Amino acid sequence: MGGFKHLVVVKFKEDVVVEEILKGMEKLVSEVDAVKSFEWGQDIESQEMLRQGYTHAFLMTFEKKEDYTAFTSHPSHIEFSATFVTAIDKFVVLDFPSVLAKSPA
Amino acid sequence: MGGFKHLVVVKFKEDVVVEEILKGMEKLVSEVDAVKSFEWGQDIESQEMLRQGYTHAFLMTFEKKEDYTAFTSHPSHIEFSATFVTAIDKFVVLDFPSVLAKSPA
Repeated sequence: MGGFKHLVVVKFKEDVVVEEILKGMEKLVSEVDAVKSFEWGQDIESQEMLRQGYTHAFLMTFEKKEDYTAFTSHPSHIEFSATFVTAIDKFVVLDFPSVLAKSPA
Repeated sequence: MGGFKHLVVVKFKEDVVVEEILKGMEKLVSEVDAVKSFEWGQDIESQEMLRQGYTHAFLMTFEKKEDYTAFTSHPSHIEFSATFVTAIDKFVVLDFPSVLAKSPA
């Protein structure tokens, strides 16, 4: 893997239908070639002391930082982001060159 | 990828030498076979509104949830965790089966 990562950790508002948000996100990544891979998950351990209200993580991988920068100004991303921010209660976003310290065998 | 993910998002205390923490973490994942892959990164966008003080993300991948559960009770993990918690100001931990919605070409 490696590459440049865009990580979003989220707590959604209570009345949000997460499946709809996910559909929009999957459409978005399918429309933007720069997004090399996209994976997400919902925390199942439910230890509030650890997750602190956050429930979902979304992780996109780009080949390089420039591709991520281009993605942020892509019309599909701008359109999706406008919807996304209305759905979330709180979030943390980290963008970083990934260091692969142990590779899959 | 896919698999079961253990995601830790962290803000370290100011006097912490992150390289030392990283060395300990790399030793830990090298000692535990259940950890299939490990990658990490430091946010370089520095948009405080987005990262909210958090600076580092650590992502471990396991084949299945049971492997992660075994990892949490591994002596090396227990030892490392005791050091780790003294080094961090705040953190978010999410554990989830990963859904790979877009694969690398």
